[in-house]
Amino acid sequence: MTAIFDFYILLKRLLRNNSKFFVAIFLFVFLVQIGFSQNATWIWYPGDYEIWLSNKMQNRRTERGTFLPVFWKMDSPYPLMDFHKIFELANPEEVEIAVEGEYNVKLDGKPLEGMPSKIMVPAGRHKLNIKVFNQATVPSIFVKGKTIKSDNSWLVTFEDKEWIDESGKASDVSATKWLNAGSWNFDSKENKPSQFALSLKPMKAIKSEKLPTGNLIDFGKETFGFIKFHKLIGKGKLNIYYGESKEEALDTAYTETYDKLIVDLSAEKDSVLTLSKAFRYVNIISEGDVSYDDVSMLYEFLDVPDKGYFRCNDQEVNNIWDVADYTMRLTTREFFIDGIKRDRWIWSGDAYQSYLMNYYQINDNASVTRTMYALRGKDPVTSHINTIMDYTFYWFLGIYDYYLYSGDKTFLVQNYDRMKSLMDYVLSRRNKNGLLEGLTGDWIFIDWAAGLSKKGEVSFEQLLFARSLETMALCAGLVNKNEDAENYTALASDVKKKLFDFYWSQDKQALVHSRIDGIPTDNVTRYANMFAIFFDYFNDYQKQLVKNSVLLNDNVQKIVTPYMRFYELEALCALGEQNYVLKEIKNYWGNMLKLGATSFWEEYNPEKSDAEHYAMYGRKYGKSLCHAWGASPIYLLGKYFLGVKPTAPGYAQYLIQPELGGLKWMEGKVPTPAGNIEMYVNDNNIKIKSPVGEGTLLIKSKKIPKTNFGTFINKGNNQYELTLEKDRQYNISYHKL
Amino acid sequence: MTAIFDFYILLKRLLRNNSKFFVAIFLFVFLVQIGFSQNATWIWYPGDYEIWLSNKMQNRRTERGTFLPVFWKMDSPYPLMDFHKIFELANPEEVEIAVEGEYNVKLDGKPLEGMPSKIMVPAGRHKLNIKVFNQATVPSIFVKGKTIKSDNSWLVTFEDKEWIDESGKASDVSATKWLNAGSWNFDSKENKPSQFALSLKPMKAIKSEKLPTGNLIDFGKETFGFIKFHKLIGKGKLNIYYGESKEEALDTAYTETYDKLIVDLSAEKDSVLTLSKAFRYVNIISEGDVSYDDVSMLYEFLDVPDKGYFRCNDQEVNNIWDVADYTMRLTTREFFIDGIKRDRWIWSGDAYQSYLMNYYQINDNASVTRTMYALRGKDPVTSHINTIMDYTFYWFLGIYDYYLYSGDKTFLVQNYDRMKSLMDYVLSRRNKNGLLEGLTGDWIFIDWAAGLSKKGEVSFEQLLFARSLETMALCAGLVNKNEDAENYTALASDVKKKLFDFYWSQDKQALVHSRIDGIPTDNVTRYANMFAIFFDYFNDYQKQLVKNSVLLNDNVQKIVTPYMRFYELEALCALGEQNYVLKEIKNYWGNMLKLGATSFWEEYNPEKSDAEHYAMYGRKYGKSLCHAWGASPIYLLGKYFLGVKPTAPGYAQYLIQPELGGLKWMEGKVPTPAGNIEMYVNDNNIKIKSPVGEGTLLIKSKKIPKTNFGTFINKGNNQYELTLEKDRQYNISYHKL
Repeated sequence: MTAIFDFYILLKRLLRNNSKFFVAIFLFVFLVQIGFSQNATWIWYPGDYEIWLSNKMQNRRTERGTFLPVFWKMDSPYPLMDFHKIFELANPEEVEIAVEGEYNVKLDGKPLEGMPSKIMVPAGRHKLNIKVFNQATVPSIFVKGKTIKSDNSWLVTFEDKEWIDESGKASDVSATKWLNAGSWNFDSKENKPSQFALSLKPMKAIKSEKLPTGNLIDFGKETFGFIKFHKLIGKGKLNIYYGESKEEALDTAYTETYDKLIVDLSAEKDSVLTLSKAFRYVNIISEGDVSYDDVSMLYEFLDVPDKGYFRCNDQEVNNIWDVADYTMRLTTREFFIDGIKRDRWIWSGDAYQSYLMNYYQINDNASVTRTMYALRGKDPVTSHINTIMDYTFYWFLGIYDYYLYSGDKTFLVQNYDRMKSLMDYVLSRRNKNGLLEGLTGDWIFIDWAAGLSKKGEVSFEQLLFARSLETMALCAGLVNKNEDAENYTALASDVKKKLFDFYWSQDKQALVHSRIDGIPTDNVTRYANMFAIFFDYFNDYQKQLVKNSVLLNDNVQKIVTPYMRFYELEALCALGEQNYVLKEIKNYWGNMLKLGATSFWEEYNPEKSDAEHYAMYGRKYGKSLCHAWGASPIYLLGKYFLGVKPTAPGYAQYLIQPELGGLKWMEGKVPTPAGNIEMYVNDNNIKIKSPVGEGTLLIKSKKIPKTNFGTFINKGNNQYELTLEKDRQYNISYHKL
Repeated sequence: MTAIFDFYILLKRLLRNNSKFFVAIFLFVFLVQIGFSQNATWIWYPGDYEIWLSNKMQNRRTERGTFLPVFWKMDSPYPLMDFHKIFELANPEEVEIAVEGEYNVKLDGKPLEGMPSKIMVPAGRHKLNIKVFNQATVPSIFVKGKTIKSDNSWLVTFEDKEWIDESGKASDVSATKWLNAGSWNFDSKENKPSQFALSLKPMKAIKSEKLPTGNLIDFGKETFGFIKFHKLIGKGKLNIYYGESKEEALDTAYTETYDKLIVDLSAEKDSVLTLSKAFRYVNIISEGDVSYDDVSMLYEFLDVPDKGYFRCNDQEVNNIWDVADYTMRLTTREFFIDGIKRDRWIWSGDAYQSYLMNYYQINDNASVTRTMYALRGKDPVTSHINTIMDYTFYWFLGIYDYYLYSGDKTFLVQNYDRMKSLMDYVLSRRNKNGLLEGLTGDWIFIDWAAGLSKKGEVSFEQLLFARSLETMALCAGLVNKNEDAENYTALASDVKKKLFDFYWSQDKQALVHSRIDGIPTDNVTRYANMFAIFFDYFNDYQKQLVKNSVLLNDNVQKIVTPYMRFYELEALCALGEQNYVLKEIKNYWGNMLKLGATSFWEEYNPEKSDAEHYAMYGRKYGKSLCHAWGASPIYLLGKYFLGVKPTAPGYAQYLIQPELGGLKWMEGKVPTPAGNIEMYVNDNNIKIKSPVGEGTLLIKSKKIPKTNFGTFINKGNNQYELTLEKDRQYNISYHKL
């Protein structure tokens, strides 16, 4: 999150230099930005479909048979929407129109009769408006002619402010704010956004066990979907108890989820349950006279292709990568959710990690933007995102990261107002010191950690606040709001200065946890210290101090969630401690696998044993055994072992700094907007091919490396740098230091 | 809008004085305020049902077969809602629960299984929560036990902000903002809010005329409803052209509304159209082989009882009152709408007059509050109400009036935040002089008047701005926001001072119309001058000057809409010119009747003739012939002839100052929250009976009047005052001055 990059300035520079190569890259990224599309697709007001779909998804949670919705505000789409675009036609053309809602069509401002499904547009310059009302689902349109097609280049508004005077003359001023339409992948008339459903695949159980009370079905691994009874018949009831563990499925008084299916069938019929659930085991107890032939499931999943990939000589690490990948696959659904069994909600802190892992796995822009739209909701802001102060800040951080990895500036431009009003909310809640402490209604989360104090001015929150203000400054600059940019920069500097003035303890050689009534506490926790490393808030000297005084210090309270281990290990990677981190990965995630994990957990405390691992929140099976934040090895291995990261938006520039961290060899693919960067690395050879941008390879070698193309530059201290051109296969030999 | 009245202060005073009479009044009004209800009723978040229903209603407009929605932002209900109440039960009871949406039920914080439709609540103190998700319609509940009943005393919120820590301990702080639930009259489980429809009554045509092209049906007067074909049969199409005038129905190329019904019936069937329309005449042209036996209609109306009433010796005035009453009946529907043929939308300026007329006619609180909720919509404010600056101000004015007439303080308390954020929007749009001029996107409406300038700082807008600030100050005081009250008072004084400093012309003896670039224009219009009279902004000397220099001056542009005639005649009434006003009423409204009006029009310019009267907006039949703002005689006759108006909220105190204005006698009923004040007045006798509050009768008499109860006080200048007790029949004899 370091480089600022403005496409328009770049374009001018590129055109001046007449560099065809750069212009091609620029145009590619620009077309990605404006959501260039050859095909007609369903469109809507940006964010509205996402909010609607998230309401639908987040209201599917049940807990022991009871509907359990979120406890924050849910918003709705605008029910009334105007879509328009101006076209230049060489020839007249017939245009097909499909709409979700009631609508009218105006051609050059004149309404056409009724709700036409086909219109003729004459040759020449014409403006086409479609205005839609839809209260229940999302006002959306699909328009398809030879040249006239609905896509993101259409403009939308929820208020067109057009009026007439008593003579019928239309007002000549309009303050209408138009945005580019939103879309996803609904590319045919029949494929209506309101009808969206995830994909399904029939899956068989691996084992069925007869119990005195019923049948215990084992699907062999954590999974998600709809239970299906084959040839169901009879009259009575089926009690279906789901378990992520065998213990949970059998302990019917405490299973977190169950279904009760009333059966009244005189002929055999295959029956599929209506709500999808998470489970590995299903315990089915019949009442009355009910029988069935078999139990299988329909696996429910988001159908997006694989991109990222990692393999190495260590099979345990490969297994960890695979299970992390599967964990992400299960939790990447309509949105990036936390876990599949319990909440199935979108939590900003969890989602932020999913964005980052996604960049090294499926790299699906739509999943990121859907999730960020859903989290932000609409104005007015009445609470922090998910009611959690830290989660508001992760939302800001996620936006700039997304821009950096995707190059999608449109999303940033269209969201700037939402960023600003959310930051206004934050700023309005500062205390007299200009810092943030939890006001009534604010949840200070940080992490699940016993006894963690949330009182007073917590350093971790100020640190995220400072970083969010920096993000605002960066984004304000990108959308040419220079006054805002200056303002946010000044605010960020102020908070950052206070972070060090108030919390840095020379004695502890660390940032302390909090101030209460203006007095710094003695308590040192890992959170602010590890973030300050990879945010580059510490200088190199402080980083080395903190590594020993906090990160490698067993006297500082240990982290027991993969959630914060993510950042802890990221901080250590940023300090070049890949060897240590690899051991930690094998130890922490490897031990979950040894305990039988088939997906990674919400919390793993090595000090617990057996079914203790399943308990949380005071409930025997309260813990989620498939939690997105458990999958961080994907991110760590991609970003800090393969060592690939963008340094300009959309990988127009990027850095590759491979670190084997003790592995003999590794290979992998890292997705970019233009395709995968492919790599192989061992102690003597590096192979790289990239489809995008201008890369910089940075390696340490005992002597000057050899390359089949280009020239290494000696950066001193055995560091060598090579500029990578796109679409070229590099074969490099070196001597690992 | 003069007296400030705080019930809680009053209650203390009343209890100190031990005045049973006042305590009884107080408790009555208090119970009205808290929406006391004996019965279970469907409840929702206040304003949400109203917004949802208004979306539905306002999207029914069609213009020549094309859907024509509003051009401002439409909002939506919160899709997720929490309802709760704490009960003390002497005995356990069974409670029935009906919900629109998916829901859960918590008893004392513990979720019950599934979505129960019946629960048992044990004796003792218990908290019942019901949380509902509903995206398509409005989250609403109906709860009915022996003592547990859903009503306005339940509390609601759209975010409960309840979370737990990792041990399952619930957060102990909550910033949840609870409001009292909203309701209307859905008093049974079956009577679901989402199913609301206006009442229907079959009506026959008075005449059917065979034309060469089809049939012209005459329903005898302006009406509204669904056309019904009896014994329809055949295959083809019916083209149904609606006309408020015969000319419109026949002029098929220009009728404002029509329907086209495809018929494919092999057996006779009664068929009712799906959209209700406004018309007197219907011109039916068949295509193909279609026949029917008869055409009738289903009259569609809001079923609320008659309350206000007026009769006098002048039959023309009685006819005017009746047609005004019918005009209001037609335009008082789901909401107070403008007119029934064309927009069928809620316009704040039109609605403001409907509120005032309503207080002298049906006096239906629910119609007023529904309309005000719908107009205000939700935050964030992105434009003026209906995009019109003046219409924003009428909304503020309407709130305090409603409080004065109804005594419903809850509405005011629950809306204060919405008032404040709307005023924030207004304040953010002031220019460097602290005044308002039209910014891009602001419609400065004032009135339909040819050539009326909307440029620069228009005096009329500043005047409404000042009044709205005064209203904010009053309401802030009533909800104990004293700092706000001081702030708004200072702002109001400032604007009011500028109004006189900048616009008062000693030369013109009037407020001039506007300032452009800081220079007052020469132009004098009636608008600001007439409002400044009944707002009491002018002193008595100025009032008399303005009466002659503006109101009775034919050189000042005449008003041709009943809309602004409403205020023009109100100003003259406030100056005691009832004799003049009566003549104007007979002339203006009487002449519309002579032209065949069966309801009053959007505009009436006596200088036009024949079908010219039907044209507006550059369209031959663009004018609405049934427009709520045409009905002002109801208000003028009730408030300034019968002379009844509240002087403390809910008629706890009121004034009666009858003025015959040239009539020989008049009698009438003026509704109050407790029932009708009934009156009869001629030159020598006055009879009054009131069911409410403490009244003051103020009359002019040549000698001291006699009364059967109480004592007249001589106020000098032949004015006499009598205090009126409730429920007492007063018979007064006097000699009219």
